Amino acid sequence: MMEKTWDVIIVGAGPAGLTAGIYTARQGHSTLILDGGKVGGRALEAHRIDNFPGFPKGVTGEELMRLFNDHAERFGAEFRRETVIGLSDAGKTKMVSTRGGFHQARTVIIATGIQRRQLSIPGEEEFRGHGVSYCATCDGPFFRGKTVAVVGSGHEAVADALALTEVADKVYTIPGPKGYSEAYPELEKLRASPKVEALEGCEVEEIQGADAVANIKLKGGKIPTVSVDGVFLLLEHVATTGILTDAGVAVNETGCVVVDREQRTNLPGVYAAGDCSCQGYQVVTSAGEGARAALSAMKYIRETR
Amino acid sequence: MMEKTWDVIIVGAGPAGLTAGIYTARQGHSTLILDGGKVGGRALEAHRIDNFPGFPKGVTGEELMRLFNDHAERFGAEFRRETVIGLSDAGKTKMVSTRGGFHQARTVIIATGIQRRQLSIPGEEEFRGHGVSYCATCDGPFFRGKTVAVVGSGHEAVADALALTEVADKVYTIPGPKGYSEAYPELEKLRASPKVEALEGCEVEEIQGADAVANIKLKGGKIPTVSVDGVFLLLEHVATTGILTDAGVAVNETGCVVVDREQRTNLPGVYAAGDCSCQGYQVVTSAGEGARAALSAMKYIRETR
Repeated sequence: MMEKTWDVIIVGAGPAGLTAGIYTARQGHSTLILDGGKVGGRALEAHRIDNFPGFPKGVTGEELMRLFNDHAERFGAEFRRETVIGLSDAGKTKMVSTRGGFHQARTVIIATGIQRRQLSIPGEEEFRGHGVSYCATCDGPFFRGKTVAVVGSGHEAVADALALTEVADKVYTIPGPKGYSEAYPELEKLRASPKVEALEGCEVEEIQGADAVANIKLKGGKIPTVSVDGVFLLLEHVATTGILTDAGVAVNETGCVVVDREQRTNLPGVYAAGDCSCQGYQVVTSAGEGARAALSAMKYIRETR
Repeated sequence: MMEKTWDVIIVGAGPAGLTAGIYTARQGHSTLILDGGKVGGRALEAHRIDNFPGFPKGVTGEELMRLFNDHAERFGAEFRRETVIGLSDAGKTKMVSTRGGFHQARTVIIATGIQRRQLSIPGEEEFRGHGVSYCATCDGPFFRGKTVAVVGSGHEAVADALALTEVADKVYTIPGPKGYSEAYPELEKLRASPKVEALEGCEVEEIQGADAVANIKLKGGKIPTVSVDGVFLLLEHVATTGILTDAGVAVNETGCVVVDREQRTNLPGVYAAGDCSCQGYQVVTSAGEGARAALSAMKYIRETR
């Protein structure tokens, strides 16, 4: 069903998309925010967000996203729970297709986020936010003086394990049976740290505990189980940009949308913000990018009207 | 007086500097925030900030900056009210000189902001935040359906006057006796707008009113006074980067610090964030840049330790 032409369609209702909506709706631009999932995106997974400025006592991801949502709604942004499946660029009009139909807009802001590959083992879902974390920058400081394990074989797993040695007392590294994917520059320092114990040749079979993570069961190595307070599952990220392949929006080799400092993609009138452009991975950096994408979209609307 | 070597010195306690401090202090890095003025920077001037996500009812600049301040203090960032007068780079150690002495650090984050040139006419100070505004993106939507005047001859004055036609009912443009500095692309649309009345050859002499701006007195033109609800004084911005000239930090022709997407300047270990890099000019974009500068500084510390 085709209706009006929106000034701005925002794909994705996480921190970046919601902030973009606050900006465009506040300026009086008709704004439609589409998301097939819950409003809030990946930030909803954060049991506690301690580093979004302005909330000195911390805030749950759910509460912060409710505030972002109210904020965008207050200015008249419209929300629909529809899964976007494609985008096509007919010059001045962009077409966004969802499972239920089509919407058209003058500008589109892509804020589809990323997904981290899960381990899919027993205990992972159960202890998410209670010791199981997918973000060391976000949650590392909660484990000051404690023992954590870092699971993953990529660069982020290495760099974040090293960062975790600054707060945790002990860090187990578990790259998996094949070891690290590359000889990353931080590996030498990581191995030299007295806080690090490398668990090689094994993988995590199960995460166990009562109210929170207490230990992890391993298979394939010499040690069957280790006690930990937290497990960082830092497997690879995948930018959620599959819908863009047919639209001609440039993405890099890992699927991240390529943008300039004003959040412009290669297509005029199409912008991207937040995790899908693979920078920062923080609520505040995504929000900043969302605002900037909105400012760019509004400039484009003004110039092409 | 020379003391310890800080992990991070942040110059400027506005939204960018405070957010950077939240991030570095939270990770356990010793963090010193220097500002010769009040904590909060230019954001303190905002009578009401309506577009910082997470505050759907709006918040005063003062209150929001108090929260940022508390947030950085909670994690142990140290604040000193000292005016920074210079920066020098001795490789692994950076030296920050203030009126009272020196401080040294492994990394420096420059968040010194900008200053907009003031008109310095009667009524300007008195009605600041009560009809006198220095930012159309920030305050434009408060004047929906109202009458405003835009004072300034540069690109921002033109682009913002056009943006104000989207919310205000009437927009007076007052470029001053010399007219606009250049033939900006938006000028044609601005002049064609039925909402715009150009007041040419004149300049503003005084801003008058009771509780809020009611009218402006003009000199040099045909009309001696016009009734307005708001006056946007959009004279040129000057990035506050004078302290950087001797340090070798690259700035562009308008004095803005040149940074990449990770907020790195040309000097290793020196980062810049917020208005001094002349992008966004919004609390949330500055905060996002502050977080990113902090992440880059922490990466540098880790790699060079």
